[in-house]
Amino acid sequence: MKPGPISHNKPAPLLVFGAHPDDIEFGCGGVIARETASGRPAHLVICSRGESGTHGTPKQRTAEAKKAAALLGATIEFVKLDGDSHLEIRAVHAIKLAGIIRRLRPDAILAPSLVENQHPDHWRLGKLVRDAARLARFGGLRELRRARPHAIGQLFFYAVTPEAEPADITPVVIDISRPEILTAWTAAMEAHASQTSARAYVQLQLTRARLRGLRAGVEHAIALFPNDPLVFDSLHQIARGSRKF
Amino acid sequence: MKPGPISHNKPAPLLVFGAHPDDIEFGCGGVIARETASGRPAHLVICSRGESGTHGTPKQRTAEAKKAAALLGATIEFVKLDGDSHLEIRAVHAIKLAGIIRRLRPDAILAPSLVENQHPDHWRLGKLVRDAARLARFGGLRELRRARPHAIGQLFFYAVTPEAEPADITPVVIDISRPEILTAWTAAMEAHASQTSARAYVQLQLTRARLRGLRAGVEHAIALFPNDPLVFDSLHQIARGSRKF
Amino acid sequence: MKPGPISHNKPAPLLVFGAHPDDIEFGCGGVIARETASGRPAHLVICSRGESGTHGTPKQRTAEAKKAAALLGATIEFVKLDGDSHLEIRAVHAIKLAGIIRRLRPDAILAPSLVENQHPDHWRLGKLVRDAARLARFGGLRELRRARPHAIGQLFFYAVTPEAEPADITPVVIDISRPEILTAWTAAMEAHASQTSARAYVQLQLTRARLRGLRAGVEHAIALFPNDPLVFDSLHQIARGSRKF
Amino acid sequence: MKPGPISHNKPAPLLVFGAHPDDIEFGCGGVIARETASGRPAHLVICSRGESGTHGTPKQRTAEAKKAAALLGATIEFVKLDGDSHLEIRAVHAIKLAGIIRRLRPDAILAPSLVENQHPDHWRLGKLVRDAARLARFGGLRELRRARPHAIGQLFFYAVTPEAEPADITPVVIDISRPEILTAWTAAMEAHASQTSARAYVQLQLTRARLRGLRAGVEHAIALFPNDPLVFDSLHQIARGSRKF
Amino acid sequence: MKPGPISHNKPAPLLVFGAHPDDIEFGCGGVIARETASGRPAHLVICSRGESGTHGTPKQRTAEAKKAAALLGATIEFVKLDGDSHLEIRAVHAIKLAGIIRRLRPDAILAPSLVENQHPDHWRLGKLVRDAARLARFGGLRELRRARPHAIGQLFFYAVTPEAEPADITPVVIDISRPEILTAWTAAMEAHASQTSARAYVQLQLTRARLRGLRAGVEHAIALFPNDPLVFDSLHQIARGSRKF
Amino acid sequence: MKPGPISHNKPAPLLVFGAHPDDIEFGCGGVIARETASGRPAHLVICSRGESGTHGTPKQRTAEAKKAAALLGATIEFVKLDGDSHLEIRAVHAIKLAGIIRRLRPDAILAPSLVENQHPDHWRLGKLVRDAARLARFGGLRELRRARPHAIGQLFFYAVTPEAEPADITPVVIDISRPEILTAWTAAMEAHASQTSARAYVQLQLTRARLRGLRAGVEHAIALFPNDPLVFDSLHQIARGSRKF
Repeated sequence: MKPGPISHNKPAPLLVFGAHPDDIEFGCGGVIARETASGRPAHLVICSRGESGTHGTPKQRTAEAKKAAALLGATIEFVKLDGDSHLEIRAVHAIKLAGIIRRLRPDAILAPSLVENQHPDHWRLGKLVRDAARLARFGGLRELRRARPHAIGQLFFYAVTPEAEPADITPVVIDISRPEILTAWTAAMEAHASQTSARAYVQLQLTRARLRGLRAGVEHAIALFPNDPLVFDSLHQIARGSRKF
Repeated sequence: MKPGPISHNKPAPLLVFGAHPDDIEFGCGGVIARETASGRPAHLVICSRGESGTHGTPKQRTAEAKKAAALLGATIEFVKLDGDSHLEIRAVHAIKLAGIIRRLRPDAILAPSLVENQHPDHWRLGKLVRDAARLARFGGLRELRRARPHAIGQLFFYAVTPEAEPADITPVVIDISRPEILTAWTAAMEAHASQTSARAYVQLQLTRARLRGLRAGVEHAIALFPNDPLVFDSLHQIARGSRKF
Repeated sequence: MKPGPISHNKPAPLLVFGAHPDDIEFGCGGVIARETASGRPAHLVICSRGESGTHGTPKQRTAEAKKAAALLGATIEFVKLDGDSHLEIRAVHAIKLAGIIRRLRPDAILAPSLVENQHPDHWRLGKLVRDAARLARFGGLRELRRARPHAIGQLFFYAVTPEAEPADITPVVIDISRPEILTAWTAAMEAHASQTSARAYVQLQLTRARLRGLRAGVEHAIALFPNDPLVFDSLHQIARGSRKF
Repeated sequence: MKPGPISHNKPAPLLVFGAHPDDIEFGCGGVIARETASGRPAHLVICSRGESGTHGTPKQRTAEAKKAAALLGATIEFVKLDGDSHLEIRAVHAIKLAGIIRRLRPDAILAPSLVENQHPDHWRLGKLVRDAARLARFGGLRELRRARPHAIGQLFFYAVTPEAEPADITPVVIDISRPEILTAWTAAMEAHASQTSARAYVQLQLTRARLRGLRAGVEHAIALFPNDPLVFDSLHQIARGSRKF
Repeated sequence: MKPGPISHNKPAPLLVFGAHPDDIEFGCGGVIARETASGRPAHLVICSRGESGTHGTPKQRTAEAKKAAALLGATIEFVKLDGDSHLEIRAVHAIKLAGIIRRLRPDAILAPSLVENQHPDHWRLGKLVRDAARLARFGGLRELRRARPHAIGQLFFYAVTPEAEPADITPVVIDISRPEILTAWTAAMEAHASQTSARAYVQLQLTRARLRGLRAGVEHAIALFPNDPLVFDSLHQIARGSRKF
Repeated sequence: MKPGPISHNKPAPLLVFGAHPDDIEFGCGGVIARETASGRPAHLVICSRGESGTHGTPKQRTAEAKKAAALLGATIEFVKLDGDSHLEIRAVHAIKLAGIIRRLRPDAILAPSLVENQHPDHWRLGKLVRDAARLARFGGLRELRRARPHAIGQLFFYAVTPEAEPADITPVVIDISRPEILTAWTAAMEAHASQTSARAYVQLQLTRARLRGLRAGVEHAIALFPNDPLVFDSLHQIARGSRKF
């Protein structure tokens, strides 16, 4: 495993997993733009080249993802699991992802939601990341013996479409209303030109973020779904609710 | 409506509603001790004198509640609704509570959980407070015309017993591990001497807080249940998850 | 009870209940425009004059509702229950609403959703209508002895805000994409000028309908939530699913 | 992949998947009889020969399934996945089923429900079909490059036993009361003579359909569970509710 | 409060509450027949005379209920709350029912389920009984000061129709297959002649009990829904599961 | 398959599956101590040697498990599936476990809960055992042809941590308050010395059992979660509820 691209003098990075080259941008690109804008490193791990999609070649899609990552201020790498539309839940995959977690040593991780009624790669990757975050802590795992165990702070799920939003987790809502954030996010989505020409993905996501923002009393917002309850030192940190109407 | 007991040069107070003189202490006393320890005013509103309970006279119980509030560093007032074990969901009650909200102008409110399989006064008060928090915003409400409308930041529910913890809201976990917080909370619970002599209430709550703390990797903790999703500016604020095992 | 305003030579009317003068337009106005456009009578029953709201006098709001109903091609009446923000769940209210149902003899009824975390009048009215639809069938109810019992075909719930959408009922999605429908709906919402000047209600609803439409592969759509499972003679009638992404 | 057995001058066929030779008949045979009676082609795909069951040889069970399909007016084919009681969720299976979907080009698909507490092959096949229905749309899938992508209208789940009925999807109820439908369904169930001699399967299903019918106010009915919300042009199409008591 | 009709030398009685004269028989009559057949006293409390129903006069219905109770081997009393179809959730009702509980001092109580989408009196009575069972324990309740507090062992809910079965409580299944039990239950249901002539109530219930029995591997069975988890000394007592298919 | 270690002149054994050497002791050791104390044989099947954990060698952990089993009065065997942290859901595993069930012929089985947000081996083993319990009944399964089919009475799930307790199954609560039971359980947990030195597992479990006991009105208790509804002959057997506060 080669050394990670991120220096450890910075704050702990945000680590984001996506099943296809465009999932991260469409599902939570605004959050990444928000985090990198405040100086936090973000690293994207893409688990296929989108080779089974209707539009775009693997080469095109790789280039689009790299461009989008740059627009979001994030670094990017590609990892090969079973390939687009072929992902299965295998221990070997979870262990490979756990190795990436140990290398990057993030505080927070974002992964696709576990709701199953969506692209079959999405929720499978979500489950693999959830398992990987746990395996990253286990000192005796022989495949990862050379990488120091690492416990993350929190795993959040993002939803690529409204259908993927889990009904059984209370979301946290991230305010992404600052114009430069919205601009960067929109540009990153549009970087996936092979996809956006065929379907109204950008409009779907901006409409969704606007609706979430209206509900929360801000311009635009994105909901994330924490895998475990959040711990706070005081109510002072959590005094803002999402209920404008 | 007489002027509230809290000066408005301070940070917005925490406002806490309880159906009986001891509910707040047993359900979330540790959180209140935590907040007042950091300089935030807290005000308790008790909606009966506990006059239908098996133990303690109304006079005793009022005195116990006052003593407990002082131990938590909180102010206290009593409001008469239908009386202990007689509470009904009436618009007039919600409006009365909305008047208290307008007077105190809190940022956050704590109220008993809406889970119905517990003391019938608990969830009814929770529903009344939830409705009151909304009515407090409506400018045309004739009964409250002299009190300026007020929108709170967030409503949290507390659970007096484990049975009252809602299964459909992801909790936030408040770390109350500092020894002086635990000491103040324990003293406040024990101030309800008429109750604690009959049942192992204090042990129940400390065991519960210890279990919640063990799960979160701290000494003691209390779970609260937000009525609406929480809004944040950044993931930085929510990087700590409750999953130690 | 005076004779209803609707002749019975026409198809059975759609009967719609709203707690405040603008709830119906914001929550399901597009569906009403769609039904009246195809020749089905629709009748709106408004259960307050919005007298507790921050903006608009009862007189203004009554006029706005009448104008909006006309724009939707619907008839309208006002019924007095407990008044805005004062609604309670009382048998006498359910019986009064059951009398209206017996008079109008609708096939389908629309009522506000039962989700409780919204304006307290909304879900209470929803519960009263649900009970009323049942009471309308009972031949022995002494208050309604002079009105012939009536069994409706189906009760649907509408959600005034996204927060009011029930998570435990699979919705049906009504396509309201035809431009004249959208125009009529928008005009009906804007007829509530006292409200729309203060908050972005129209934008909220159009954004919501656009998002629901994008998900279903149409321009705009509104979700309704059936109170009971729907019965069909054949799969032929239900071959269109809402899943475009 | 050989050419499908169904001419495309007819209406789009109903495509039904079953894990074992008798699952379709027991779970939704009445619906198939109803559809074919009105001239719609139906095609059954059976994914094992029932070779792990206690009763009946694979040869017997194949013959029984063919006889039952004929009684329902449906065509039938057998596809080999992992074999009875050995089914695993593999991408290769989902792709194989997606190929069948592309070949048959159905409007609606029926598959076993996803509830896991039943025969392990049932829910696994349901998940594979759900994934297959999505994969059938993806133009870049290399294994299926020669078959034109196809998007179905709706996927419904059927429940082989009451235990398999999902609690989180509002069902649609199909009226199968016409005597000739019930007769055809019963005959198709009884065609599985190796199974019905050992357990009261036919009685279970007729009792279930009678109970569902009584609830809906008809003689017999079968519930199906849509994978996605249904889209309609008007309330007119959905005016019949299932609530007789 | 007059002395109860049940001597206290016997085992603790089963106490059953019904909203209308026939609810208990239709919802759980077989369970009562089963309990009285083994020598346990059962007492029915009916909270209206069915005076709002379409069929039968209050006098007829009272007589039918008395006859049915006798056929079940149970005693019966009528208590007046708000009247048929007029029941409201009032503290005074819960306290009155708590008084009955203190008088009868039952071990187990049966009450209608809390699912709201049914006759409005049913779930309201269920909630009142649930609250009453709690109030019966409170020593300070002034209205009941002369009746010694009483804590029941368990509260179970019964469902008058399949729609009333709660989806969020795992049921316990009571085997009522013995022919004399089924005979007594059927006779008790048929004693409500004013109702059974108009709707297929008896057939609905027998079909339901047969389906539940088939699922559990017995002739007939009725599901009850415990309000709180059950406590056991050993797994030995709970070794029989309901899963025959 | 070698002959089982348990003579069949005794009552049917309790069969307990664990993914790692310590899971059974931490999750439900008190229940096993309770059952063996009353003369019922219990047999533990451990599906890894804990070789991926941070602490303890496989050899140490095997020894610890054997010691713990002896302290609980249970027999033990180890079965090799995919190894610690590598478990996958494969048909071959379920069939292997079904073979163990046929050999031991238990009445009740305990397995780890299906809640997925825990160690990935836990819920996967739970699913495999659930499937295995069903496969054990199928006469035609070729791999198990030499072992007579067996139908168990009930499958219960245990939760290794509070996070693993399923929210959608009503638990049964087993009273383990007798001092000798608690002593045996504590000793069995402490036998896993390699684990208990690193984390407060014993304290977690005793705190949890104390809290569950306080809620049920006993000293200590453990909740189990039945896979299917329980069948009873009479209410007499289920008269004790868990609700002390």
